[in-house]
Amino acid sequence: MKTENSAPTMKDVAKEAGVALGTVSKVVNGLPVGDSYRLRVEEAIQKLNYQVNSYAQGLKANRTHTVALLIPNTVSPFFASLTYYINIALLKRKYRMLLCSTDSDLGLEQEYVNMAQQNKVDGIIGLTYNPNLVVDESIPFIAIDRSMGPKIPCVASDNFAGGQLAAEKLADLGCKNVAFLRTGSSLTNEPNKRKAGFENGCLVRGLNYEMKILNDGEPHEEFEKFLSEHIDRGKLTFDGIFCVTDDLAYSVIQILHKLNQKVPEDVQIIGFDGIRHFGIKDYVCSTIVQPVSEIAEMCVELLLQGNMQTKPPLICLPVSYSYGGTTSESFGRQE
Amino acid sequence: MKTENSAPTMKDVAKEAGVALGTVSKVVNGLPVGDSYRLRVEEAIQKLNYQVNSYAQGLKANRTHTVALLIPNTVSPFFASLTYYINIALLKRKYRMLLCSTDSDLGLEQEYVNMAQQNKVDGIIGLTYNPNLVVDESIPFIAIDRSMGPKIPCVASDNFAGGQLAAEKLADLGCKNVAFLRTGSSLTNEPNKRKAGFENGCLVRGLNYEMKILNDGEPHEEFEKFLSEHIDRGKLTFDGIFCVTDDLAYSVIQILHKLNQKVPEDVQIIGFDGIRHFGIKDYVCSTIVQPVSEIAEMCVELLLQGNMQTKPPLICLPVSYSYGGTTSESFGRQE
Repeated sequence: MKTENSAPTMKDVAKEAGVALGTVSKVVNGLPVGDSYRLRVEEAIQKLNYQVNSYAQGLKANRTHTVALLIPNTVSPFFASLTYYINIALLKRKYRMLLCSTDSDLGLEQEYVNMAQQNKVDGIIGLTYNPNLVVDESIPFIAIDRSMGPKIPCVASDNFAGGQLAAEKLADLGCKNVAFLRTGSSLTNEPNKRKAGFENGCLVRGLNYEMKILNDGEPHEEFEKFLSEHIDRGKLTFDGIFCVTDDLAYSVIQILHKLNQKVPEDVQIIGFDGIRHFGIKDYVCSTIVQPVSEIAEMCVELLLQGNMQTKPPLICLPVSYSYGGTTSESFGRQE
Repeated sequence: MKTENSAPTMKDVAKEAGVALGTVSKVVNGLPVGDSYRLRVEEAIQKLNYQVNSYAQGLKANRTHTVALLIPNTVSPFFASLTYYINIALLKRKYRMLLCSTDSDLGLEQEYVNMAQQNKVDGIIGLTYNPNLVVDESIPFIAIDRSMGPKIPCVASDNFAGGQLAAEKLADLGCKNVAFLRTGSSLTNEPNKRKAGFENGCLVRGLNYEMKILNDGEPHEEFEKFLSEHIDRGKLTFDGIFCVTDDLAYSVIQILHKLNQKVPEDVQIIGFDGIRHFGIKDYVCSTIVQPVSEIAEMCVELLLQGNMQTKPPLICLPVSYSYGGTTSESFGRQE
């Protein structure tokens, strides 16, 4: 027995509108239906104050309340942190998360995409550098850091602004001659914009700069060679270095120690990502911090809203700078 | 149409044995059935060379090929690494993994246990310090690091041997007066055996030792107080310290720097876990390394074999020592 006070159901809306239940479902889920039907359903929804479950919109009716995360691994601290915050964002919305540590295996990635196609999961959040991964536009898919194609929203940090911020910080800290060091994928991706942002910042602030960019697979020894070629009478000619990740910054600091250069006295270093020791302690280096929990929330929110086609293709979230011991802040250390 | 060469099915076995399909299923899954029936089924299996899917044994017939992992988070490097290796071990066996970062939330943990009870997942691998979590014996559950009750196998490192190894290493490295520092849960758990192992090692090797053990929630400042109370004329009276985790070792090293004590010149430090910078680079400190990938494989293998009741209650896997810069190895550095 339905009591007076219970919340109206989709059935009540159908009865009120004088249409089939399937018609109400179509309207609620944004599927095509004749205009007159749509109007009647919308009026009935308003009259009964029927509350549409926002997560029901856009996602297929046959929901599993399960979302898959494709991520290279959870050992790298940035991926580990991203995995945690996406997991938390899903769990608090009562969604389960399938974790797929891909190790960039195309077969595995494609398998999970196929699961989404067969409605075995409601959608996918994926960080993949696999150019051969085929993702149909019909699959609810949110890409992180690399655009996967039209109609697939991509969420990332504002990498350009982060690169620019690194240059501006080095300028603020008194640097005149700086370098940018990078390794990574040659595929078009958001993190690659760190370089352009840094160049822009150097131009704006009148810094002399050089770039050393290694391709995938080239050994880190190339950085050692590059840096030792820039030592003049025992002194590095750079007074500031921006490394594309904290991970690289860590390696570069070790190279500099080998070359008898002191950090930050001789050369200041800024990394990118915002990695902390043990995930929660102090920063590994002075760094441009990615807003990991905000990226996670945005991915989950966009995915569960559904209707990917109506979403912006690229969403860039603001980064910030944090002191981490490898720069010489003028007004005392900020922690 | 069945061809001559196709693999025999359970149906073929039932026909050959002259029993019902359900009887074959019971035999295959280790459920009780009359001895004469069992014999006939086993003979038919042998005659037809019927290949039992080993993962079908013990796990319920209504399989989801999905296993849930309960873990506090994936931000802490040890948990992140464990998550990765368990994920890989499951994926390579064509199992999916639901990740549940619990943040030690009892409600969440219990929800996943209930899912297992309702056959929504085939089993659970869980690292939890929640004394109130109710896990029924009928649920395929593998516990990590803390015994969850009878008939629930627990997989862990050999923590006692690890503690003993730490003491022996410090003795080998010339230490005479050592300390053991610990924080952590007061619940009975495997990592707590590090203390007893260390004590044993100290006794065997004739080391003088002191212990400082903080309870959950007590501030790290207590360690600073303890250590500064053991400074005599500017010099720490301990020449070796064993910390219960690498995480704690990292904090203790910072405290020692504050107290003007050099590591490893004045005092050598050994941690526990085997945490590496960025998950894959050098060790954070000299450390007793947990065999994370072996723990992961063991958990997955035991769970998918099923028949938890026939498994040993505790499985301890061997640890090893690795140099990580905070000890003074006599014969050059081992990396």
